[in-house]
Amino acid sequence: MALHFSQVAIIGVGLIGGSLAMILRRNGLADSVVGVGRRIENLKTAVQMGAIDRYVVDPKEGVAEADVVVLATPVDTYEGHLSEWASCLKPGAIVTDVGSVKGALVEHAERTLPRGVRFVGAHPIAGKEKTGVAAGSDRLFAGARCIVTPTSKTDPQALEQITAMWQATGATVLSMDPYLHDQILGAVSHLPHVAAFALMDALIEIRGRVPGLDLAGHSGGGLRDTTRIAASSPEMWRDIFLWNRDNIVAFIERYEEALGRLKELIRAGDAAGIEKALERAKQERERFPAPVAVTPSP
Amino acid sequence: MALHFSQVAIIGVGLIGGSLAMILRRNGLADSVVGVGRRIENLKTAVQMGAIDRYVVDPKEGVAEADVVVLATPVDTYEGHLSEWASCLKPGAIVTDVGSVKGALVEHAERTLPRGVRFVGAHPIAGKEKTGVAAGSDRLFAGARCIVTPTSKTDPQALEQITAMWQATGATVLSMDPYLHDQILGAVSHLPHVAAFALMDALIEIRGRVPGLDLAGHSGGGLRDTTRIAASSPEMWRDIFLWNRDNIVAFIERYEEALGRLKELIRAGDAAGIEKALERAKQERERFPAPVAVTPSP
Repeated sequence: MALHFSQVAIIGVGLIGGSLAMILRRNGLADSVVGVGRRIENLKTAVQMGAIDRYVVDPKEGVAEADVVVLATPVDTYEGHLSEWASCLKPGAIVTDVGSVKGALVEHAERTLPRGVRFVGAHPIAGKEKTGVAAGSDRLFAGARCIVTPTSKTDPQALEQITAMWQATGATVLSMDPYLHDQILGAVSHLPHVAAFALMDALIEIRGRVPGLDLAGHSGGGLRDTTRIAASSPEMWRDIFLWNRDNIVAFIERYEEALGRLKELIRAGDAAGIEKALERAKQERERFPAPVAVTPSP
Repeated sequence: MALHFSQVAIIGVGLIGGSLAMILRRNGLADSVVGVGRRIENLKTAVQMGAIDRYVVDPKEGVAEADVVVLATPVDTYEGHLSEWASCLKPGAIVTDVGSVKGALVEHAERTLPRGVRFVGAHPIAGKEKTGVAAGSDRLFAGARCIVTPTSKTDPQALEQITAMWQATGATVLSMDPYLHDQILGAVSHLPHVAAFALMDALIEIRGRVPGLDLAGHSGGGLRDTTRIAASSPEMWRDIFLWNRDNIVAFIERYEEALGRLKELIRAGDAAGIEKALERAKQERERFPAPVAVTPSP
């Protein structure tokens, strides 16, 4: 059975929602894609780019005829959205999302949606430093990973269709328990973001104590790489930090311990101990795959 | 007066020393470049690559006829080197170095060298993740910065010559007090290295608590960038951490405070406070210059 939807509603036509919409239309995976949003200029851009067929401002109208509804708004808005329009969904409709946090949000969606409506959590891991549909592309997910997070309540057919939809974007789809997703992403994504934001914050403090320190002017490749993700969206990361709060706080504590250990080795002048700690970090880091060639944006 | 040396001795013909040697020879800045080292294979490679004219194993022999001696060994070896051969230097010889820490090392060199021998501290900031002359290049310093660190004891002519030598490599030369250098580099380079090494260490701990977490397999661009410099040389960074110990310990404490502040905002669920902290970091990070286009090594 080839994947085909008659109508898809995209709630939040930003970088992720807009790019997915574009792919669904260009690849003929949906007869019609309707965008739902509040920023009319952005929605008009989405129509002009051919990402969506049309837009509506009232989500109840947008979701009423949809086979698939994609929640692509900040995770903090899910609760408001579902309570507003869950009762308007067609029987058999699939609701899915693209959020960076899953556990509690998947559980809430499963509890809130009416009988007969099927929920599948998903998290495409694609560049999110730019925002808005204008930055979208039908290649955004090519080579990226998308994690789907089924539970014991997930309908197998709906899971299969959402998996096929993400595979059609060029993404590699992995399946994971939603709470395990939050632990794993908490470690490999959310903690590094905390580290980068806090490093910038510390450097701002240090600048106040070191006359002549010019963070931008003195920055080298090491600092630039280490803090690149500190330029990410404050709103998006605020929500991720709050919705994955317990894991993130626990992982920050592990990080504080690791920093404290290295600090004490340095303070004590323990050359062998420092070298051993750095060697352990280096060996683990060298197992990471090499990045694909990139040309940074100007 | 065009820059010209009759004989230059390079102590430690690695990536930095070897690349500098290569530039001095290829650009005709020195009649003869002699390499001093212990790893004969590496020294033979340096001769084959045309980086040095010849090599000797005994540094006393290497420095005896040199106008300029470049210390390009790990900073921890400076003391041993200077006490071994300082008394063999020609009157008027210039000793310079390429170390990543300056304050105490410059002070020690100035105290140790005999009257009539002139010291100029220098720190070319060039990629140091690879090692050995085989990774060297006569373009290594093109577009890079080199910090020279004169003191009240520095001979102005010697400073002028070492400045001209680094400018001839294509580097932009900045001048800075050696102790201020250690504060500034401590902030923009050494602290980010501590952060990256400790982040890898924390993730190794976290992996023990999250079944299925595969650091390499689950790593995305954010984690890869944030930890890239954790693959740097443990020996080199051990020495930098020890020689710049006081600044680094103080800056780690500022970082611990910044992390602690963000952790408490997250723990308290303070959405506005989190967003404000992230916005502050983002605004500062966005002032950094964009990187030049790079193709990562395979």
